[in-house]
Amino acid sequence: MPDKSDMADKKNRLEPKLPRGFADRGPEDIRAVERMMEKIKQVYERYGFEPVETPFVEYTEALGKFLPDQDRPGEGVFSFQDEDEAWLSLRYDLTAPLARYVAENYERLPKPYRSYRAGWVFRNEKPGPGRFRQFMQFDADTVGASSPAADAEICMMAADTMEALGFDRGQYVIKVNSRKVLDGVMEAIGISDELQKLRVLRAVDKRDRLGNEGVRQLLGPGRSDESGDFTAGAGLTEQQSNAIIEFTQVSDPNELQKWYNTIAEGGNIEAIVEVRDIAALISRAGYSDRVRFDPSVVRGLEYYTGPVYEAFLTFDVPNEKGQPVIFGSVGGGGRYDGLVGRFRGPSAGSGQAQDVPATGFSVGVSRLAAALKAVGKLGDEVASGPVVVTVMDREKLADYQRMVADLRNAGISAEMYLGSSGMKAQLKYADRRNSPAAIIAGSDEFASGKLQVKDLVAGKAEAAAIAGHDEWRDERPGQFEIARETLVAEVKRLLQRQTGK
Amino acid sequence: MPDKSDMADKKNRLEPKLPRGFADRGPEDIRAVERMMEKIKQVYERYGFEPVETPFVEYTEALGKFLPDQDRPGEGVFSFQDEDEAWLSLRYDLTAPLARYVAENYERLPKPYRSYRAGWVFRNEKPGPGRFRQFMQFDADTVGASSPAADAEICMMAADTMEALGFDRGQYVIKVNSRKVLDGVMEAIGISDELQKLRVLRAVDKRDRLGNEGVRQLLGPGRSDESGDFTAGAGLTEQQSNAIIEFTQVSDPNELQKWYNTIAEGGNIEAIVEVRDIAALISRAGYSDRVRFDPSVVRGLEYYTGPVYEAFLTFDVPNEKGQPVIFGSVGGGGRYDGLVGRFRGPSAGSGQAQDVPATGFSVGVSRLAAALKAVGKLGDEVASGPVVVTVMDREKLADYQRMVADLRNAGISAEMYLGSSGMKAQLKYADRRNSPAAIIAGSDEFASGKLQVKDLVAGKAEAAAIAGHDEWRDERPGQFEIARETLVAEVKRLLQRQTGK
Repeated sequence: MPDKSDMADKKNRLEPKLPRGFADRGPEDIRAVERMMEKIKQVYERYGFEPVETPFVEYTEALGKFLPDQDRPGEGVFSFQDEDEAWLSLRYDLTAPLARYVAENYERLPKPYRSYRAGWVFRNEKPGPGRFRQFMQFDADTVGASSPAADAEICMMAADTMEALGFDRGQYVIKVNSRKVLDGVMEAIGISDELQKLRVLRAVDKRDRLGNEGVRQLLGPGRSDESGDFTAGAGLTEQQSNAIIEFTQVSDPNELQKWYNTIAEGGNIEAIVEVRDIAALISRAGYSDRVRFDPSVVRGLEYYTGPVYEAFLTFDVPNEKGQPVIFGSVGGGGRYDGLVGRFRGPSAGSGQAQDVPATGFSVGVSRLAAALKAVGKLGDEVASGPVVVTVMDREKLADYQRMVADLRNAGISAEMYLGSSGMKAQLKYADRRNSPAAIIAGSDEFASGKLQVKDLVAGKAEAAAIAGHDEWRDERPGQFEIARETLVAEVKRLLQRQTGK
Repeated sequence: MPDKSDMADKKNRLEPKLPRGFADRGPEDIRAVERMMEKIKQVYERYGFEPVETPFVEYTEALGKFLPDQDRPGEGVFSFQDEDEAWLSLRYDLTAPLARYVAENYERLPKPYRSYRAGWVFRNEKPGPGRFRQFMQFDADTVGASSPAADAEICMMAADTMEALGFDRGQYVIKVNSRKVLDGVMEAIGISDELQKLRVLRAVDKRDRLGNEGVRQLLGPGRSDESGDFTAGAGLTEQQSNAIIEFTQVSDPNELQKWYNTIAEGGNIEAIVEVRDIAALISRAGYSDRVRFDPSVVRGLEYYTGPVYEAFLTFDVPNEKGQPVIFGSVGGGGRYDGLVGRFRGPSAGSGQAQDVPATGFSVGVSRLAAALKAVGKLGDEVASGPVVVTVMDREKLADYQRMVADLRNAGISAEMYLGSSGMKAQLKYADRRNSPAAIIAGSDEFASGKLQVKDLVAGKAEAAAIAGHDEWRDERPGQFEIARETLVAEVKRLLQRQTGK
């Protein structure tokens, strides 16, 4: 541990800054994201999901090692030892802790168990633009259901969520695929080694970032990035690589159907039945225009065992250089039948851990908020601040405080100016707080039982219309006098006038 | 780093458990605490405070070392190094991060700066009953106001918060004290050494836990706890110890006034002016019955520089042995004029860091929820679950799914049973989900365009009244038949009947 400064050590000036990849949140962001999450929550609850939350810290071992690109040990998660020398980690997603929770409470929980949770997760990765080391996810999961209806439902719920948030039909698509299908393709072209399969999966997952050329390198001999770091390739032949790249680019449903037939003929019928069942349920429920099969979706996390989903926004936004780029993914998920089973003993006879079927979906909250902002649906209007009771006469603090109390007791957000500056600075402060009105009282007002009310919204408008400084002095834009005892009623009337309510 | 298991390692059964001091939260807890926090938020906003949030991770150095009982290095906080070898820590409170935030954004923020935030904090301490290593605080702070009106306001807001939550007048008291007053007492009896003063403060802070005898040991030669750990004492004479213990036990206001006079005569006028100003504002605002001076309050955190506050619940609750004990503290705070200044350069000439006056209050969310539960005001009624559409005929999944979609589109929480069990288990599942109704359809129903609706609330009541098994079969408690096309209307009517709305 480094030396830490304490209060006695005042000369040692500290830099007030955050570690890279962490960020503060202001009122507009907090309120907009809260409203957004409330809408998501309503959809999840309408689907019968109930809230559950796990803590931020788990045993490192319980979380497991399922992040993409974790070739170096300790990469990806923040870990530390407790006083018993056990390794603890900050959760890197909400799925691994849920698996622990379900396993721990297995007998007690209704099954299938539907639950949702929003929470911050942490990744010990190199931060970059829009890439944070702390970010929020909003997940929903069904544990204990192997039925394709559970997968179809998650996809439809993801679609309903996008609509509830305000995206138009056509601005989003829920992409579905199955890792078993990709597995079937690999087997059909003679890839059976598990490490090779894993590397193919990781290569395909990087298509959005690296393009087909990068994927081709990773499928073949390997790839060096700009920093010179080398990632080992899957070692496929050129023909095998071509097949993988061709398959993951299929967009025509008839073309895709041909591939499915090939896979089924290759003996991998289970994978095809699964995607067909999901497709049938989605079609019968009228979601075919919003939920589509896309063979390029594989998702990065290693624990997925079959169907995978991705919520994809199809509209353009300008990138850093001002060029239009497709917004892309705002969340994803999949089926993870092995994750809960890690905690369950082997079933009798088989010596294998008991799989507990599970499927879920995770929204990237910040990405989604950025997307809503891009289409003007985040609703980030600045909230109105408190009424500010200014202080002209410090001997009268208790009187000003009483005015504030009267307003607050009437449910009006209000405060007494607590700083030490003069009237001009106090009105400037009220402006910065986005106050609807300032109350002003000096010795004249206290003597006559009157108050000055300054309508700061009308004042701004009038002030903009007034040209000269002298006129300003005469007009006192937006300011009017009231009797002290009418304070609450007058402020209420003013607020109604301002908001039109 | 330890070996971590991955999915390939299925035989290695993991224990599904949390590290000690961490806990999961179920739906009732989450919903009740959410409602409670919404009430607190409304009070804070009415007082003109606006939300701001900082991340969970900060530079260890930025947080500083202000926790009580941090004699051993690294004790109290969870820390780890990032890839640049810099030490990072999980925040142990919400005040130290706020100080960093204000210093970082000093020029941009309106001053005085009023803000609130709820968030989880972490302590690397030995967990015990009701003592967690992750817990939630809900803070409000005014930064940039040295006026006692800022302190008085925080106390009144704490009182208003207790009332908004539902505590009766008399069930709570906001206790106020000033560390400067205790400082004045110490100077009056000849204690001037800084380390000695700090140890006196820490000793007094432990009165609730150790009683007067324990405090006396810590004021004098020191104290060994049950485990044999020795805490060094302040080394006071018996006379000095007596004076401290006598002062901190004063409850009569006239008696307290005599002490204040002694302190003022001893030259420490500033401390007495401060408490008198706060008392005057509280009295004029009509809060004297709820906000009271109490010389035993010092609060544990080291960064407080003057006034300290404590929200104290006065009613009894049973302890683990069933004996009645006073509920006690559910939050506290104080003035911390030096904390922001740690980040500000020395002012010209003085070579001293610039103090930035600040005062705030922190609610212990779980403690408060426990207190509300004890007086029956938490409102933790179990929420109604979803309508469950049961599955008799797996060929008809799409039809069942359509029923669910119809209900959801009408805003009714609903789900299709996704497990693989029979009808009896499905109805049991609906019961465990606290469902208001189950929908049943088999081949008869599909042929005739009818559905069975089972009112699970009425069903439970009727079933309780039915004696024999045969009667049960005939009556089918709570069950009735409807036409498929009236599903939404009939379920709506049933829900209205159940809730009386």
